[in-house]
Amino acid sequence: MTTTVIILAAGKGTRMRSNLPKVLQPLAGRPLLGHVIETAKKLQAANIITIYGHGGDLVRNAFNQEKIEWVEQTEQLGTGHAVKVTLPVLAKEGVSLILSGDVPCVQQSTLQKLVEASTETGIGLVTLTLEDSTGYGRIVRKNGKIQAIVEHKDATEEQRQIKEINTGIYCVSNAKLHEWLPKLSNENAQGEYYLTDIVAMAIADGMEIASIQPEFAFEVEGVNDRIQLAALEREFQQHQAKTLMQQGVHLIDPSRFDLRGQLTVGKDVRIDINVIIEGECSFGDNVEIGAGCIIKNTQIAANTKVQPYSVFDSAVVGGNVQIGPFARLRPGAQLSDDVHIGNFVEVKNSSIGLGSKANHFAYLGDAEIGSGSNIGAGTITCNYDGANKHKTIIGDEVFIGTNNSLVAPVKIGNGATTGAGSTITRDVAEHALAVERSQQFTKENYQRPQKVKK
Amino acid sequence: MTTTVIILAAGKGTRMRSNLPKVLQPLAGRPLLGHVIETAKKLQAANIITIYGHGGDLVRNAFNQEKIEWVEQTEQLGTGHAVKVTLPVLAKEGVSLILSGDVPCVQQSTLQKLVEASTETGIGLVTLTLEDSTGYGRIVRKNGKIQAIVEHKDATEEQRQIKEINTGIYCVSNAKLHEWLPKLSNENAQGEYYLTDIVAMAIADGMEIASIQPEFAFEVEGVNDRIQLAALEREFQQHQAKTLMQQGVHLIDPSRFDLRGQLTVGKDVRIDINVIIEGECSFGDNVEIGAGCIIKNTQIAANTKVQPYSVFDSAVVGGNVQIGPFARLRPGAQLSDDVHIGNFVEVKNSSIGLGSKANHFAYLGDAEIGSGSNIGAGTITCNYDGANKHKTIIGDEVFIGTNNSLVAPVKIGNGATTGAGSTITRDVAEHALAVERSQQFTKENYQRPQKVKK
Amino acid sequence: MTTTVIILAAGKGTRMRSNLPKVLQPLAGRPLLGHVIETAKKLQAANIITIYGHGGDLVRNAFNQEKIEWVEQTEQLGTGHAVKVTLPVLAKEGVSLILSGDVPCVQQSTLQKLVEASTETGIGLVTLTLEDSTGYGRIVRKNGKIQAIVEHKDATEEQRQIKEINTGIYCVSNAKLHEWLPKLSNENAQGEYYLTDIVAMAIADGMEIASIQPEFAFEVEGVNDRIQLAALEREFQQHQAKTLMQQGVHLIDPSRFDLRGQLTVGKDVRIDINVIIEGECSFGDNVEIGAGCIIKNTQIAANTKVQPYSVFDSAVVGGNVQIGPFARLRPGAQLSDDVHIGNFVEVKNSSIGLGSKANHFAYLGDAEIGSGSNIGAGTITCNYDGANKHKTIIGDEVFIGTNNSLVAPVKIGNGATTGAGSTITRDVAEHALAVERSQQFTKENYQRPQKVKK
Repeated sequence: MTTTVIILAAGKGTRMRSNLPKVLQPLAGRPLLGHVIETAKKLQAANIITIYGHGGDLVRNAFNQEKIEWVEQTEQLGTGHAVKVTLPVLAKEGVSLILSGDVPCVQQSTLQKLVEASTETGIGLVTLTLEDSTGYGRIVRKNGKIQAIVEHKDATEEQRQIKEINTGIYCVSNAKLHEWLPKLSNENAQGEYYLTDIVAMAIADGMEIASIQPEFAFEVEGVNDRIQLAALEREFQQHQAKTLMQQGVHLIDPSRFDLRGQLTVGKDVRIDINVIIEGECSFGDNVEIGAGCIIKNTQIAANTKVQPYSVFDSAVVGGNVQIGPFARLRPGAQLSDDVHIGNFVEVKNSSIGLGSKANHFAYLGDAEIGSGSNIGAGTITCNYDGANKHKTIIGDEVFIGTNNSLVAPVKIGNGATTGAGSTITRDVAEHALAVERSQQFTKENYQRPQKVKK
Repeated sequence: MTTTVIILAAGKGTRMRSNLPKVLQPLAGRPLLGHVIETAKKLQAANIITIYGHGGDLVRNAFNQEKIEWVEQTEQLGTGHAVKVTLPVLAKEGVSLILSGDVPCVQQSTLQKLVEASTETGIGLVTLTLEDSTGYGRIVRKNGKIQAIVEHKDATEEQRQIKEINTGIYCVSNAKLHEWLPKLSNENAQGEYYLTDIVAMAIADGMEIASIQPEFAFEVEGVNDRIQLAALEREFQQHQAKTLMQQGVHLIDPSRFDLRGQLTVGKDVRIDINVIIEGECSFGDNVEIGAGCIIKNTQIAANTKVQPYSVFDSAVVGGNVQIGPFARLRPGAQLSDDVHIGNFVEVKNSSIGLGSKANHFAYLGDAEIGSGSNIGAGTITCNYDGANKHKTIIGDEVFIGTNNSLVAPVKIGNGATTGAGSTITRDVAEHALAVERSQQFTKENYQRPQKVKK
Repeated sequence: MTTTVIILAAGKGTRMRSNLPKVLQPLAGRPLLGHVIETAKKLQAANIITIYGHGGDLVRNAFNQEKIEWVEQTEQLGTGHAVKVTLPVLAKEGVSLILSGDVPCVQQSTLQKLVEASTETGIGLVTLTLEDSTGYGRIVRKNGKIQAIVEHKDATEEQRQIKEINTGIYCVSNAKLHEWLPKLSNENAQGEYYLTDIVAMAIADGMEIASIQPEFAFEVEGVNDRIQLAALEREFQQHQAKTLMQQGVHLIDPSRFDLRGQLTVGKDVRIDINVIIEGECSFGDNVEIGAGCIIKNTQIAANTKVQPYSVFDSAVVGGNVQIGPFARLRPGAQLSDDVHIGNFVEVKNSSIGLGSKANHFAYLGDAEIGSGSNIGAGTITCNYDGANKHKTIIGDEVFIGTNNSLVAPVKIGNGATTGAGSTITRDVAEHALAVERSQQFTKENYQRPQKVKK
């Protein structure tokens, strides 16, 4: 049985008060629609048909790496109309999952349950039981079987007591969609074609309506304004935090943790307050991440301790490394095991060998540093001549003095030493001492500048 | 009809356990009393009379820029007594809004509703319906009309079931205040004069008591201790966050956002977690503020991205600027469009021209930098000679090498270049290269210092 | 009456998914068991007997500074068995408090109440009234007296309505423990010896079972997985925050405050959002701590203002000091009154005298700085020669220019001045000017490097 995923993504989202189409608003760093597409891909859908409308080019371009069948809905005439425009490209066989681009958190497992339940009956939907169901379409059952979906405004007082509601997530036989959708009518107050009407058609056809409930209520929450977006972001983050804690991560405060991507963890990872993880990251056993760190697309090996307020992007960090606080690793930073990077140190596109140290204020850019070397405080690799970038090569067991300017391209041999305050423009031989410095001269009884009266 | 605002601000606030009078405790960065005065000013009150007592000079001095009529209450003999001491300066006509200096969040719209309702009847008050009204004065009604306010301790069991309470915010005809207040009695258990008694007097006079309810319950919450202060701060912050989200701001976590002042925003402003906004700030379209930024009295133009942990105070930032992380803009920093300011860079009282860059570790103080220039890592303007501050003037398309010390006053001409590690003490001509450096010398097979055994 | 404390700490804690034994998992920076031991010490227990099992050596080593009687439970055969293995070392007289190493937050005052109540009767326990008591052992009472403890699975439908539960915290006469524990049976479904059975034995002996309730529910919460650990951490933190607010501390957001140790405060201390306090700290009157600061084992005297994102460890800070933002004080930093430490400044094992300043980018390590001195931006004490650490001595009223490298050991006399960009290798006499610098030379019409086409 092949499964098609149909995603409704044509809405404008006026209430977001944004220039961006609603389905491109980010949740946990990814567009709402991106979450739905990711889930569709996990389901190994044979085809992902996305109905776009408002902000069409923006929406399509945002996902131009994805294998998606785009169908334009030029007029927004209701959910039924939206699905109807897919008919020309919709397979005649199999089933379709019908999802909304602004309901981003529905889980793969929930949809799999729905597909299984619906494959037998030909139609199924996701329902939810709410304490307060005011405003939602109610699921009317008799002897447990779904009899109708009644919109709030059409419901009797008795029906309004029903707590089970329609979430708008369906799985339907494609054959039936081809049969039913052309028959939808817009003869109602809004003049719109409602997808919900297919439920009545199925019942009229004598079909049983399968239904399942999601594991978590937030899976079926939609986003219509910034307040709902922020609320769903928190629910999603709490869910991710809980999942990591179940894997054994020690989160000091799960309500102050943000994961905007994927995090793979070893045992006994500890993450302090206000950490943000972005993209794809992995942390080995016993990794500790200090408060306020922001870590993106970075691998960190076991036993490494990252002190607070360190910001990493696209770095690879070895094991038993000490970094921070206030350390910055930029793309291409590669730290071997046992490296020490201290406060106010920036590393970009540089490799640092086993056990080497740069403990205070340093900019290491486009550098290759061997093992056992020590980079003095205030040292800067002058990798940019105003037009081109050049490399600085530093060997093993090198001692670079403080406040050095290493003018690249330049090479410092193994075991070499440079004096404090030197600007090093020529290569330094192995085991040599290089110094660039004048004589210190003294003027006795120097008269300092005086405060000028204004 | 002229409106007077009378603010009760004489209380000591013993439960705050502070040396500061209670009404000077800050909420969202402004003293409690300051919030009430701001609201009074928005109401265009003809006169703002503030009754002070404890910590009198501190209170008056904190608002010496404001046009306020100060009346001292030398003894704290109750709320009725407090208002009575204003009679010598209170107009005979119009109405008075009677507010509390420790109820800071009452909104202008609520008070306007109260004034309108009270102007017709001569007296009105703000009531609130609470699920649990224990301890509060109950509003006793008959056929919808207020019959009495009964204090909790005096209430019958039946009256204690009443959920509508008195908030202590009144609007009363000045003529009536002049008539009633001298008649207040202190013959009660506490020996105090209660303002509430004027309600009984009004009813005795056959007047109808108008009443309105606030839009939000937190508007009428008072502050008596640090726990209440912190709770109200959070309610106020949540309210402000919600208001900004309704304007279209994307707040990643509204419960981790602090606004201590006013923020004006364009479209699609995105603010990450734990940002603090202070004073008067404005952000143009598409401005993004990274996690943990603290921004005070700063304007930021459209499309600028501020990376995490940047701290700004009294700066002006152009459009399409890239700043941070860990950037510090101090008062007088002016960045033109397209400027790049990187990590660990401090800018004070300096202007930076179109597209110029200072990407790593730099202190730019009292400098004027033209367009298209690049400031090397580690460069410092030596603006202070120990007694006076001097300016550094850098032209367009200048390249300042790394680790430069620019000893002000000094001028670097357009298109000039300075060598890495230079201390520049004399002006540099346009298009010239200036270097201050010695020869690099080398000692082969240098023997490093050895670890001294202790 | 002597009190013994018996702590059950033998559990593995499989659900934590950790290599660490459960009782070593930290809450507020201290192992769970450490909290219980601290409370036992406050009770001035005559003896603290801790039953260990899983991860035994790790557990014992973590507390090798404490005076604890360790008893190994080689097989985990239930709580009754655990206490039984203490009998060989348990006194015959007095009473024992029986606590769990994974119930860390029980307060001294609660246990004192329990001891008092139990001393009279010979046995007592801590009970708790829960809205939802599902799963817990219920306290069955008749005429107010405890008749039995019935486990959930054994309870009748009527007993399941009981909201009062057993917390597992007991105080029992040692004589009775010696009598009862050998009689415990493991003839039950789990094949375990249950401590709860002593309650039935006491009742059979005609004893009355004393009971008390804790002041706060979180005191008796146990920790079995990461989610419970994080939840209890938050409850504990909220409790600490509330206690500090009651002492008069102004916490801007009590839900974003972490205290991992002890904080002693003066009056009117203000702590902004996301501050972490670790170890033993004390703040004098009017101290203000900016957002995001992390302060460990540090004393700060009155009127000092710490700006955001400052990180201190084992420092002593005088009064009226200005520090930060982004300042780092490492162990041994001692700042006198009126000192100014600005952004991106690191101080380690150094004393800074009255009113001295280091306002931007500086590393001061192993330095002694007198009063009234000014350290230029970018200045670094070169305290490490690659093998040994040396001292830098700077006198009073010294002016160190920007970007200086002070090569230790070196001494700068009172009133001396150093020029910008100097590397100072030799001592500077009092009131002398020392400069290490070459002539600035110029090349007119310098042709900059051109962009290389690739």
